[in-house]
Parts: sequence; structure tokens; C-alpha cells
Amino acid sequence: MYTYDYLYDFTKTVFLKMGCSRDDAEVIADVFLAAEMRGHASHGMIRIKEYYELWKAGRINVKPKVRVVHETPSTAVVDGDNSVGMVAARWSMELAIEKAAKAGTGWVATRNSNHFGIAGYYAMMALKYNMTGICLTNANPLVAPTFSISRMMGTNPIAVAIPAYKNPPFVADFATTPIARGKLAVAEKKGEKVALGFVQDKSGKPSNDPTILKSGGSMLTLGGDRLHGSHKGYCLSAIVDIFSAVFSGANFGPFVPPSVAYLPLLEKKTGEGTGHFFGAMRIDAFQPADEFKKKMDEWIDTFRASKPAEGEEKVLIPGDPEREAEERISREGISIVPAIKDDLLKIAGELGIEFD
Amino acid sequence: MYTYDYLYDFTKTVFLKMGCSRDDAEVIADVFLAAEMRGHASHGMIRIKEYYELWKAGRINVKPKVRVVHETPSTAVVDGDNSVGMVAARWSMELAIEKAAKAGTGWVATRNSNHFGIAGYYAMMALKYNMTGICLTNANPLVAPTFSISRMMGTNPIAVAIPAYKNPPFVADFATTPIARGKLAVAEKKGEKVALGFVQDKSGKPSNDPTILKSGGSMLTLGGDRLHGSHKGYCLSAIVDIFSAVFSGANFGPFVPPSVAYLPLLEKKTGEGTGHFFGAMRIDAFQPADEFKKKMDEWIDTFRASKPAEGEEKVLIPGDPEREAEERISREGISIVPAIKDDLLKIAGELGIEFD
Repeated sequence: MYTYDYLYDFTKTVFLKMGCSRDDAEVIADVFLAAEMRGHASHGMIRIKEYYELWKAGRINVKPKVRVVHETPSTAVVDGDNSVGMVAARWSMELAIEKAAKAGTGWVATRNSNHFGIAGYYAMMALKYNMTGICLTNANPLVAPTFSISRMMGTNPIAVAIPAYKNPPFVADFATTPIARGKLAVAEKKGEKVALGFVQDKSGKPSNDPTILKSGGSMLTLGGDRLHGSHKGYCLSAIVDIFSAVFSGANFGPFVPPSVAYLPLLEKKTGEGTGHFFGAMRIDAFQPADEFKKKMDEWIDTFRASKPAEGEEKVLIPGDPEREAEERISREGISIVPAIKDDLLKIAGELGIEFD
Repeated sequence: MYTYDYLYDFTKTVFLKMGCSRDDAEVIADVFLAAEMRGHASHGMIRIKEYYELWKAGRINVKPKVRVVHETPSTAVVDGDNSVGMVAARWSMELAIEKAAKAGTGWVATRNSNHFGIAGYYAMMALKYNMTGICLTNANPLVAPTFSISRMMGTNPIAVAIPAYKNPPFVADFATTPIARGKLAVAEKKGEKVALGFVQDKSGKPSNDPTILKSGGSMLTLGGDRLHGSHKGYCLSAIVDIFSAVFSGANFGPFVPPSVAYLPLLEKKTGEGTGHFFGAMRIDAFQPADEFKKKMDEWIDTFRASKPAEGEEKVLIPGDPEREAEERISREGISIVPAIKDDLLKIAGELGIEFD
């Protein structure tokens, strides 16, 4: 078991050694550790290797100049200058919050960025300003549209954070596929199979192999099959892709650059880098802030009191599982599976820093 | 088979007879017929009876004064004055478009409204202004959160319309359940069963009975079960509910008033009427308009060229099925099943107007 501080310092040092500024290394470490603490190990320490290898391959800019390229009172387009995704993302969300403070809402589309960790982190940045936060991102293509075997979209998550009064905030953060890609990576590392309904092989047949993406397979959209609404998951994923890429001028769909160095850069581009979309809405742009938050308390209390189905213990509010994980992991520490520890040891060795 | 004009005039006359203004009756008829033409009969003529019975029960205001109750440069809250939903909805979307023209984006939360037909209609209003349109609404509670048997949410649809250049626009319009409630009504009228995975009985057991909602059953969220991501469908539906109701001051979740007169009004209120949420974003608030639209063309062409799975004919773009329906129905006319025709004949008789 590791402590938060130990892994935070290690992660920060890795990115400092790669050449990031102290500020940038700190936000990057903060996002990695937030993923671990919130129980999303799939977006935590396991991913450091991917960023490290992208850096070694010269595919990521550790000295970026993030900048606004276009704006209106409530919108902006940001160029992330090929930064580590967390750097462009935090900068962009801060801008959305600034715009919302003046215009009621702020909406920022960001191009020329990279994988930014958990979307929920940025949505939650809005909470302390009494704002609702929204964050979308596209990602490298692994997901097939309904009726297709082509890998056209990422797992394209949606995160929405809404403040409450006495209750903890409502925080939804989910891939628009039945599972996030990272969950396949975790299953692979653990040597486990996955349930049917998540992936198909290269001919479109159902598969339970978490490594199937390496042999031409693809992930399915939320809903699973057409009868059960996979076309709605496809719509959602497409909306996230368009908001992230067409709005910003990033690469869309199948042209999003791989976030892993073992896949070559694509020859064709339809824009710059990976795209994100951020939104911030002042709650008092709609209702007096305290009234809004008390109504959210009532919403949360009402839904928490839903009657559980037979055999189920309780009904959850979006954000509950992550908060429960955070409480548990704060007590118990962060566990890292052996295969990931080996990766981190190797990186530490190469960078000449300590890890054990 | 009926012509567009015949049913449009009939619908308009029904609402004129109920006391609506000419303007209001025309937008109401326009939305009903748009549903029929786009192949969503579940939101078309079958629903006239519901509005008629709400009116007979004195539960809907045919002489509304729709008004703004709060605003910022990019936001507003609208009170629909218990109007027929289409009236408050068109008014609110027009306001969102006006705000977007000035601030880049416009966001309107509307309370004290009623069922408004197809969400896509309002999202599509933005297209001719070179804007992306968004429309959400809550609805009377029929859907259970993951792990629950309580009917806490409506089928809470999401509609997003994005303009393209030479291609028809991208138009996604979908319930956050595997199917829309209206599809159950259509199956019931036709005397058919439905597939498993859409509804559960009052104890939480799977059911194929489209009438199960009348005996305490509930609909499931997109994803179907927890393993396959029903919690993500629950998140989506919850987000739609909160944006529509907490932002606007409407009733949320289980307190949304029934859109059918055979269910009594609830004793408890958490706001006023049904809630909607509308968004408009100028595409040139992000990219030069023509560049944006040409990029959308490229997006559409790319996705249309995805490789179909074995046994599938082609991959669709959101909006394709509705456009294909519209072409077919324009040629062939609108078909109305006997049970619905009987309802319309009865209404015509009671209002003293013609229908055959």
C-alpha cells in the first residue's frame, strides 16, 4: 500500500524530470492521484507509462504555451500547444469559469491537447465557485458505431458536477461505452476476461478478451446492441467527439492521435491533437445560489430514498461510489498491482529517481 | 393514409377549439406533424388525446402569458404559465437563440410547462441561424434508477442539432432509456409484446408487457443493467432532470406532473409544472461558420464510410432514420392505426369538427 503523498511526489518528480514546470507537474500529479483516490485506478498510476513513452517518442510538449485563439463573451477556443492533457485542460476550465463569472456561462473548446486523465476532475473545479461544471473529451478511436466494425470513436466521457448545500455534490463522470478503456487494461494486467457486451472482434462477433483491441477488435457503445439502444450510445459519443473536435479544431473520431506510443501517429490529420470541451454555468445565473443548492439537497435526498430492488442494498447518487472509494483509500492506502509497479520501477530507474 | 395538410389543419383546429390562439395552435400542430413526418408516431397524433383530456380536466392553460423571470447575458429562466408544452418551448428556444446571437451562447431553463412533443424540433430551430441547438426535458416518472424499483425519472430525452455544409445536419434526439415511453403505447395499441431489457415489474423482475407501467412496473435506463452501464443511463437521465427542473424551478423527478389525465395530480410539489432546458451556440463563436460546417461535412462523410458489420447494410448518421422516414412519408402519406383514429373521431365529435 502506498500513501497519497508518496505517489504524488513520485508522479510530480517523474514529470519534472521530463521537463515540465513545477506548476504543470503539480496539476498533472494532482489529476493522477485524484483518479487513484476516487477508485478509478484505470486512469491513475497505470497511465504514467503511456505519458512517459509518448514523451520519449517526442510526441508531447513539456514546455507548452497554452493560448486563446478565438473568443466571444461566453465562449473561447484554446490551443493546448501539444501539452500533457492536464495542463491544457486545467487552463481551459479556469477560462470557462472566468467567462461564466461575467456572462453567466462559459464554454471552452480546446484543441492540440492530449489525454487529460479523469474528466470529472475538471468538471469539479467549478463547484467551489458555485457553478455547475461540464467536461467532455474525445480520445483515440477504439469504439465502433452501431452496425459497424470500424474503430471510429474514443470512449468519449461526459462529466457533470453540480453543487449541493449540505449534501456532497452530484458528480457524474462516465464513458459513453459500457466500460472505460482503462478497465480493459486493468483486466489485462490482472489476467482476467471481461463480460460479453463490451467488445467485439474484428469481424463483429462478441468477445470476452480484454486484449481484443490489439487484434482489430472494437468496443461497443452504451446500450450494447441496436435493440437495446446502442445507437443512443453512438449519438452520445458522436456529440462528445463533435463538441471536442469540430468546435475546437482538433482531430475528430478516427483521426484522434493515439495516447499510446506503441501505435504510430496517423498520416491523415483533420485538426490539431486531441480535443476537449469545457462548460461552467453560474448556478445564480438561473436561481438564487442557496435556493439552487437546497433544491439539489432535496433532489439528492429524494433519490437516495428510492426503494431498492430485491437483493439490492441501496440506491446511489452519482458521485457516491467515488466518495466511498476516497474514504476507504484515505484509510487503507493506494494499492498498485505488481505489473504496474514493475512499470513504475523501470521508469524510475531510467529517470534516476527513487521508487519502491 | 392521410396527408400532412389534412392532419395539420385538423390538429390546429382541435387546439383552436380548445381556446388556443392561432399562433399557438399553429406551432402545436407543427410539432405534432413533425413527429409524424420524422417517423416518431409515438409522439404524433396518438398524443392529441392526452392533451385534450388534460384540457378537459382543466389542467392546462390555453391562454398563457409566457415570461422571463431571471436572466444574465447568456442565460434565462422562463415561466411557461402552464401552457401546452410546445408554446413555452418554442418561446424559450427563440430566447436562447437571441441570447446566443449576442453572447455567443444562450441557455434557457423553463418551468411551469407541460409535455412538448419531440425535443429534436426545438434543437433544430437553431440550425437556420448557424447555431448548434440543444434541448432537454424531464417528463412524468416511469423510470427506475439503477438498483431501484421506484419510478423516479421520465424518459428524459436529449436532442442536439449541429449544422453541416452540403450534408444534411447532424440531429440526435433520443430518450435516455433504451426506448421512448411512446413506443410502449404504440406496442400496446397494436397488441404486441416488447423485448426484454426495457421494463421491469413492480418487484424488479424483467417483463415484456408494454402495459406493465399501469401495474406498478417501471422502465429501465439506457444500459439495461449495472454490468452493462445502466448507471450511466441513470446519470444521463438525472442530469436532464436537474438541468430541466432544478435550474428552472420546475418539479423534479418523481414530482413531475403526469402528462395523462388518468393519473391524478400529485399532492407534493417541488416546483412548477414540467421543466425543459434549451441551448443555442453560434458556431462562429468557435470557428468561422463555413469552416465549421465543412468540417461537419467531413465528419459526416467519414462516419458514413465506416465499414458495416457482417449482415448490416450501412452505418447511419444521427438524423438519417428521421430523414428517410420523412422522404417516405411525404410520398406515401401518414398512416394512423385504427385505435388512434377512433380516439381522434371521438375528439372531433365532442368538439364539433370534422375528421374522417
